Amino acid sequence: MKHLIAAATVAVFSAGTAMAEKVTLNMPSTFPGSLIQLGQAGVKLQDTLNLISGGDIEMKFFEPNALVPPLEIYDNVSNGSVDAGWSVPGYWGSKNSAYNLFAAVPFGPSAGEYLAWHWYAGGEEMMNEIYNRDGIQSLVCGVIAPEASGWFRKEINSPEDLKGLKMRFFGLGAKVMQKLGVDTQLLAGGDIYPALERGTIDATEFSMPAIDQNLGFYNIAKHYYFPGWHQQSTIQELLISKAKWDGMTDAQRAMISTACRANTATQLAEGEAIQGKALAEMEANGVTIHYWSDDMLNTFRGAWDEVVAEEIAANPDFKNVWDSMQQFRGEYAKWKNLGYLK
Amino acid sequence: MKHLIAAATVAVFSAGTAMAEKVTLNMPSTFPGSLIQLGQAGVKLQDTLNLISGGDIEMKFFEPNALVPPLEIYDNVSNGSVDAGWSVPGYWGSKNSAYNLFAAVPFGPSAGEYLAWHWYAGGEEMMNEIYNRDGIQSLVCGVIAPEASGWFRKEINSPEDLKGLKMRFFGLGAKVMQKLGVDTQLLAGGDIYPALERGTIDATEFSMPAIDQNLGFYNIAKHYYFPGWHQQSTIQELLISKAKWDGMTDAQRAMISTACRANTATQLAEGEAIQGKALAEMEANGVTIHYWSDDMLNTFRGAWDEVVAEEIAANPDFKNVWDSMQQFRGEYAKWKNLGYLK
Repeated sequence: MKHLIAAATVAVFSAGTAMAEKVTLNMPSTFPGSLIQLGQAGVKLQDTLNLISGGDIEMKFFEPNALVPPLEIYDNVSNGSVDAGWSVPGYWGSKNSAYNLFAAVPFGPSAGEYLAWHWYAGGEEMMNEIYNRDGIQSLVCGVIAPEASGWFRKEINSPEDLKGLKMRFFGLGAKVMQKLGVDTQLLAGGDIYPALERGTIDATEFSMPAIDQNLGFYNIAKHYYFPGWHQQSTIQELLISKAKWDGMTDAQRAMISTACRANTATQLAEGEAIQGKALAEMEANGVTIHYWSDDMLNTFRGAWDEVVAEEIAANPDFKNVWDSMQQFRGEYAKWKNLGYLK
Repeated sequence: MKHLIAAATVAVFSAGTAMAEKVTLNMPSTFPGSLIQLGQAGVKLQDTLNLISGGDIEMKFFEPNALVPPLEIYDNVSNGSVDAGWSVPGYWGSKNSAYNLFAAVPFGPSAGEYLAWHWYAGGEEMMNEIYNRDGIQSLVCGVIAPEASGWFRKEINSPEDLKGLKMRFFGLGAKVMQKLGVDTQLLAGGDIYPALERGTIDATEFSMPAIDQNLGFYNIAKHYYFPGWHQQSTIQELLISKAKWDGMTDAQRAMISTACRANTATQLAEGEAIQGKALAEMEANGVTIHYWSDDMLNTFRGAWDEVVAEEIAANPDFKNVWDSMQQFRGEYAKWKNLGYLK
């Protein structure tokens, strides 16, 4: 009888793609699961995938440090110690500076243009040419709305006011700030508030209004600057061990990429939805909101041009990716100027 | 032995949600499957859903008129003659004028803001309060980039130049044009070119550059106007018989909504990606591209304010939806002005 049941079971299992061998994906995260947008989108990916795959894929989100420290996710996916990771490509800029360009670019594309380049002008493909060298597959799996430029204890009225400031800053934007005499440090989200409170730093950027509000910076620094020229949008990614990715069925890969694209649309919509309320609440709490003068934006832009030239000279991968993005942006600029109401 | 196999089969079937009763969704489309973005996104939805559901859902895209005429999809989904439909809510404005507001709004939100309102500020929910009355469930299932303002044989330099013009126009924008003395007609995509050629119409709007290029209007009318104030973005929808939707498992509903959200991200990215090239090619083909003067845009906006007032007075549903959208847009305006580089 056991034999008969086994035969029947096999027959049923082979009837549909849904009965492929189950894939387990343990996924450590760079961001706490409770963090609006950045972490919550990773939890949502897990929930969606587990529901739509009907048991074919079992994804498990792990809080930062529960399996591995956030900044060691790359190495652990690369060597196969973990199956996957929830992150942002810019966290791996020390492995290859070109990763920064896949995540968030100063004076760079905002969400729609960025996704257009990633999916229709070779961005995601170039990204994987680099990741694959280390045995990793990366899927664009989310996009967040623009960040704010940051929190300052004192008003910034000229480039002079930036000199000597100690400020938390991330990614390529940090290199721009260094050119302007800012002493930058990269602190994880949870470490910023105490550093501001103790005076270890004078200023910080972290993310968009709804997230920054969550972290309470406005209790200490009252001047909040816009626009976030350094991150007009930021791509989130799902890292997967390349061997694991290659071993899946077409249907399993499609479930993952479909869940990632759904995540992207949802995150974009949420990011646009929740900033207005956060801004209004922060103003009610005594925050002064500023928009950078043209002079200040030109100063940032000039320093960014110097940073780009240096990065291009230092890394051929950076140059290739930059050239691809610039070519696309040239074509897109005509459309952007015509298509949209100003 | 049959009994034993049946028992084993049942055991396996009940083990995972993936083994739920199969759902068939025959889906007639408003747009040909070959039409860039508008139709192709419907075919893509079909392919994605069939692949990720592993046989749990079988969706079949039908070309316009193969099952039912495009403008009869609503009634057929409502009475259960077809399971589903691929469309745009604005096509049902004659059933209830509020449907227009879920699809594309003159001087209205562009993609990110529109999705934010639909998914996080009650838009999609209000939409279904109306659809459900007729036994239909509608899912936001795509969004297209801004349209162009249209094709004219002669330059339009003042509101006077519009008077008496015969023009193909769609939706709420058509009511605006009527206020300005334009004689509007709604023609399906395939009927526009011959009407322009014969001189039955003097001008036409249809969609975005890459789609308009496909339809060849530039061979006859050489003046192409931007921005498309009447449709800064357009929502596509999947209609499903409400009884069918309610009878599905949670997993099946999640597969459909996940595939729809994925479709939305993909369509948005593609829409942003393909316009620049189309514009460059049309200019090479002798098209003159114009951006409306502030005077002309103010004229359109003034006429639109009159149309809104009339629609609000005529239909309480329109008023409710309009108020919801305006409330959200008020909050969003602060964010839009601060968050983005100008």
